[in-house]
Amino acid sequence: MTNADPPHVLIARDGGVLTLTLNRGERFNPLSEEMLAALQAAFDAARDDEGVRVIVLAAAGKAFCAGHDLKQMRASPSEAYYKALFDRCSKLMLSMQQLPQPVIARVQGIATAAGCQLVSMCDLAVASTEARFAVSGVNYGLFCSTPAVGLSRNVPRKQAMEMLLTGDFIDAETARERGLVNRVVALDELDAEIGRLAASILAKPSVAVAMGKRLFYKQLEMGAGAAYQLAGQAMACNMMDEAALEGVQAFLEKRVPDWK
Amino acid sequence: MTNADPPHVLIARDGGVLTLTLNRGERFNPLSEEMLAALQAAFDAARDDEGVRVIVLAAAGKAFCAGHDLKQMRASPSEAYYKALFDRCSKLMLSMQQLPQPVIARVQGIATAAGCQLVSMCDLAVASTEARFAVSGVNYGLFCSTPAVGLSRNVPRKQAMEMLLTGDFIDAETARERGLVNRVVALDELDAEIGRLAASILAKPSVAVAMGKRLFYKQLEMGAGAAYQLAGQAMACNMMDEAALEGVQAFLEKRVPDWK
Amino acid sequence: MTNADPPHVLIARDGGVLTLTLNRGERFNPLSEEMLAALQAAFDAARDDEGVRVIVLAAAGKAFCAGHDLKQMRASPSEAYYKALFDRCSKLMLSMQQLPQPVIARVQGIATAAGCQLVSMCDLAVASTEARFAVSGVNYGLFCSTPAVGLSRNVPRKQAMEMLLTGDFIDAETARERGLVNRVVALDELDAEIGRLAASILAKPSVAVAMGKRLFYKQLEMGAGAAYQLAGQAMACNMMDEAALEGVQAFLEKRVPDWK
Repeated sequence: MTNADPPHVLIARDGGVLTLTLNRGERFNPLSEEMLAALQAAFDAARDDEGVRVIVLAAAGKAFCAGHDLKQMRASPSEAYYKALFDRCSKLMLSMQQLPQPVIARVQGIATAAGCQLVSMCDLAVASTEARFAVSGVNYGLFCSTPAVGLSRNVPRKQAMEMLLTGDFIDAETARERGLVNRVVALDELDAEIGRLAASILAKPSVAVAMGKRLFYKQLEMGAGAAYQLAGQAMACNMMDEAALEGVQAFLEKRVPDWK
Repeated sequence: MTNADPPHVLIARDGGVLTLTLNRGERFNPLSEEMLAALQAAFDAARDDEGVRVIVLAAAGKAFCAGHDLKQMRASPSEAYYKALFDRCSKLMLSMQQLPQPVIARVQGIATAAGCQLVSMCDLAVASTEARFAVSGVNYGLFCSTPAVGLSRNVPRKQAMEMLLTGDFIDAETARERGLVNRVVALDELDAEIGRLAASILAKPSVAVAMGKRLFYKQLEMGAGAAYQLAGQAMACNMMDEAALEGVQAFLEKRVPDWK
Repeated sequence: MTNADPPHVLIARDGGVLTLTLNRGERFNPLSEEMLAALQAAFDAARDDEGVRVIVLAAAGKAFCAGHDLKQMRASPSEAYYKALFDRCSKLMLSMQQLPQPVIARVQGIATAAGCQLVSMCDLAVASTEARFAVSGVNYGLFCSTPAVGLSRNVPRKQAMEMLLTGDFIDAETARERGLVNRVVALDELDAEIGRLAASILAKPSVAVAMGKRLFYKQLEMGAGAAYQLAGQAMACNMMDEAALEGVQAFLEKRVPDWK
């Protein structure tokens, strides 16, 4: 990469919505070292930017993301290198769940292997009818083990296993039925649909959204008793926030909350 | 509340079926302190009543339950108060799973926030086509963290997250597809459908039902190996029960079991 | 059983595909002590047979499997006997997940109680349109606690609970929608459909399949952070395997991998 290369991730702000666009469309946006670093930097910057309320993860070109950069990987046949690479990738994937802002995947085309994993780890996902999904590493002898972590937390296990063992694609509607994406719309409706979801989230107080998102993933990994303990604390704390006190008051007075 | 106030929960017995009806229909049956206490008392009484074999959780009026009593909550802006309130509510929710009898939600109208949570924590749920479901606290700045515990154990995670972030309603059929309710029928079929489910459960020995229900929720929180250990013990114990020995014997002799 | 008795499990090899057929069709293939022992022996032998790449679990006769052998069980009314029996059965069920090869259930007819559990514990399942599924022990007073372990890891919890409490059958299409089976086809298409799945798996390197399958079930029982740790190690290790290095190289050169 020279200084003249276009950035790996395009960063755009529109009000509270931050759109990150994977920008190697001609190569199907592989998660190269450079792409991983650019994405991680963008997420890290967003974390502490209170003006960012929703993050849209989008992609340039025909494909959403085709997974790791196999050419780059093949050039460094060392277990230590691969371990470090997957650790970096896993950190990125977990970062999306750890962000205070909801992350919405905008899936306009195919998402395979770690590209499918990216979708699975976003909080929400909207796909175009042209999107297709696969965890296809097994086709070249590399079982999609890290993508399996995200996929199997979205999709029932036998259906996840079938995708992992066969490498076959599923279409967008099937992905919706199985829980991998929230909504499927025509390609030219994609931005409008995501705009509606983003607008809905922007209308909520960011403190409640951030507390809720953090609690959501934590409690998923607990037994019900411990989950309720934690959730009860979160709600009591949330309720003491000025936005909630005003929101509830406004609700009782049948008026719009004054959240400035 | 004066002594002349109608009870918060109506309690009716019909054979082995105990029907508890939230009785503040004109206010959409909020889970006020009084309602929580009345429900908890009714569940506690049912636990030790061997004559109760199935519990139906119903509601008066147009709505099933609109969640917490926001007016009452807003009047006591103290974190300690809220913590105690949510702890009491969580205890109630867990009580339903800890009861030896199956609890069936009869959802005739909207169920929002902790009302939606009530449905999620019942063992089974039958909804009318007019029922709708939302976890709408985020609309007034209070993310539905405790409802999220139940919801996310019924519904795939991206779909749960969408409901929690947007506060949007889903209709009864969508709730069924996603796992939040078992069956959807016309409002005037609701009692008949629940009657069929209850009759099916009444036809089984209560010991087997109680052991099975307890085992079911415990093993869900374990790894498969530990779950099988516990389940194997439960089955061996269950098989030594007189009802099972007679039931299996009757099955082998192709006759109806004599369970008196 | 005399020496003249037909074997409890028929064992057939066709290339890399091992087909195990439950062979007490006239009795609906009950999981008697003899059947459990024969199946366990067949799985144990397959584990160390590198020539076996896919296992198909099939059944003779009209039914797939009707669960435990109730006549045999009823003849030994001792808790110690039952405990040992269920432990042996649970070991068998877990063995299927621990095998390096994928196990595909070929469900041509009804699968009840531990028969339904067998299906739930296979990695993949293909059912004929005539198959039906129930966990019906509760009908004779024996709640299907061990089948619940497998079932509740395939099917959403309220739907699993309904099956366990009512003992009612669901048809093959419903089983597919809920995640218990992957595909449903006409009975005379069953072998062709399973052949396609098996062929897809045979086309992948066995090391990748074995590592992936092992990782898949382990990570399901972990939090996301720990799951990613383990999955990253698995992928790095998998990538260093010769089949993956060749597979990725072939992919980059747009040629068929030379996996001999």
